[in-house]
Amino acid sequence: MADKEKYAIGVDLGGTSVKLGIISLQGKIMKKTAVETKAEDGPENVISQVKYGINILLHKNKLKIHGIGIGSPGTVNVKKGTVENPPNFPGWKKINLGKIIKKEFDTIVRIDNDAHAAATGEMIFGAGKNIDSFVMITLGTGVGGGIVYNRRIFRGEHGGAGEVGHITIDHNGEKCNCGSFGCIEAYAGNAYLIRRVKHQLNNYPDSLIWDLISKNSDNLTPKIIDEASLKGDVFAKSVILDLGNFLGAALGSVSNLLDISTFIIGGGIAGFGAPLFNTIKETMTQRVLTPLRPKIKIIPAKLKNDAGIKGASSLVFYNSYC
Amino acid sequence: MADKEKYAIGVDLGGTSVKLGIISLQGKIMKKTAVETKAEDGPENVISQVKYGINILLHKNKLKIHGIGIGSPGTVNVKKGTVENPPNFPGWKKINLGKIIKKEFDTIVRIDNDAHAAATGEMIFGAGKNIDSFVMITLGTGVGGGIVYNRRIFRGEHGGAGEVGHITIDHNGEKCNCGSFGCIEAYAGNAYLIRRVKHQLNNYPDSLIWDLISKNSDNLTPKIIDEASLKGDVFAKSVILDLGNFLGAALGSVSNLLDISTFIIGGGIAGFGAPLFNTIKETMTQRVLTPLRPKIKIIPAKLKNDAGIKGASSLVFYNSYC
Repeated sequence: MADKEKYAIGVDLGGTSVKLGIISLQGKIMKKTAVETKAEDGPENVISQVKYGINILLHKNKLKIHGIGIGSPGTVNVKKGTVENPPNFPGWKKINLGKIIKKEFDTIVRIDNDAHAAATGEMIFGAGKNIDSFVMITLGTGVGGGIVYNRRIFRGEHGGAGEVGHITIDHNGEKCNCGSFGCIEAYAGNAYLIRRVKHQLNNYPDSLIWDLISKNSDNLTPKIIDEASLKGDVFAKSVILDLGNFLGAALGSVSNLLDISTFIIGGGIAGFGAPLFNTIKETMTQRVLTPLRPKIKIIPAKLKNDAGIKGASSLVFYNSYC
Repeated sequence: MADKEKYAIGVDLGGTSVKLGIISLQGKIMKKTAVETKAEDGPENVISQVKYGINILLHKNKLKIHGIGIGSPGTVNVKKGTVENPPNFPGWKKINLGKIIKKEFDTIVRIDNDAHAAATGEMIFGAGKNIDSFVMITLGTGVGGGIVYNRRIFRGEHGGAGEVGHITIDHNGEKCNCGSFGCIEAYAGNAYLIRRVKHQLNNYPDSLIWDLISKNSDNLTPKIIDEASLKGDVFAKSVILDLGNFLGAALGSVSNLLDISTFIIGGGIAGFGAPLFNTIKETMTQRVLTPLRPKIKIIPAKLKNDAGIKGASSLVFYNSYC
């Protein structure tokens, strides 16, 4: 039988490594690789690494590639293909990465910021496959987001829409790295969460967490909090409950503003699973406007470890739908 | 010269009165009237009143009317023309007001909720005439809102998007009528503002406000706070400053989420003018993400007393653009 599948290359441009894969329209990974980003060696070297990674994928490849999708940090101009000021890429400024890659490989190149790529990935391959409108949240080092409205990414005026992490839950609250106060990221971002829990842990000398971290709070991770919670630790449970309440308050604001009721949640901290998801839903249901209450849905993301390359490749498929 | 202007009827359906006008595409009011809503007499009487008002306008009218636009409270289905559960309209439930009015007057009928009508009004006739994307905020009894993105109203899944009033600024904050806590409406809505200021006023026995209200705090209005502030009253000034900070925090969340940087602010409380607008802008500029900071614009709404009928009539012109 002839091969009727479509294929795209997905490039997940990260601060330390560039992950790449050939992905089918069904979301199957046909081949994958990773190369160092070499961000500290300057933009030219980063671009060389991206090309090098793509060439590894194309070596002996016989699948017909429809295009290359790139998920990048920084401000991305989707139409032009430029990437501006990606954090931790010294000397980058504004570079038309899309044009450079297109010139090199003579194929369709789609580029978007990593949060929008993740949302597109869930829309094309993942939990959002059959959902017209949803907000995608990634709970990791930061709290990232992407708004999907009627199967389109809502980009805003300069391509930066969806910054759920910088929704305020307490205008006099925790200092956030962005310079503001009380952003949900300052409560739910990995580093903030660990710092807060470390601090609180001293008030719970009987918590199971102490054993799991061999009495050294530097060993604390979200995974350990999860482990302790599953073993019934009251403090660990309260941490997840608090986190759910914080997120529920932030996402309640999002839902009221956008009148979108489905939230797809991924990233490492989403690993807390049902206890976190249920609390978010309960809190939101109490906080959103009456007509939204019965409609709130909190769904785990489907794309896990390969979310980056799948999301990036989905940009090609997504645009070919337009 | 032949009359090349276009005209539409605008119907502003309120809880106590129905305001109506014939408006030109230039935003000029050619004729206007108002009738009682008679909401307490049930839906049939309300509908009769709307028809009666329109007939008053049409009496001896010689202008060519392109259609009728209706701004209504409640949940409006723009496509179908239905109005659901308008607050303070007993016995209403869900009624296809659009269809009924269309049948009676045999012309184009466009209907939307009052907040979206206000935003459309500013887009077609007002401060948003030359702005592609903005958020319209109405500071009145409640805090209403409408999102305009690339010259289109962003409606959300069920037509309810833009509820800026129910963005949280403090998840453990003031109780809001909606059932949640810390919504910006619970700080900036007229009644909440007055209640808070009454309470605080006791700590400022020397405030000029006491004279202006003849020592009776039941006489307190936003206008009096404004008057005292203009006369240099320190407490009154601090009230406006606080209000600006609260609003700045809420709108900062909105701007981060939507990547929209222009905010058009109308309604009675917007009458505080420059001191309020400047504080909102300063607070927002400190709170939004770096790329947004130089772009934040806070603009007063242009449509004042006749915003309701102009906004409603603009629905006809807006749709004829599509």
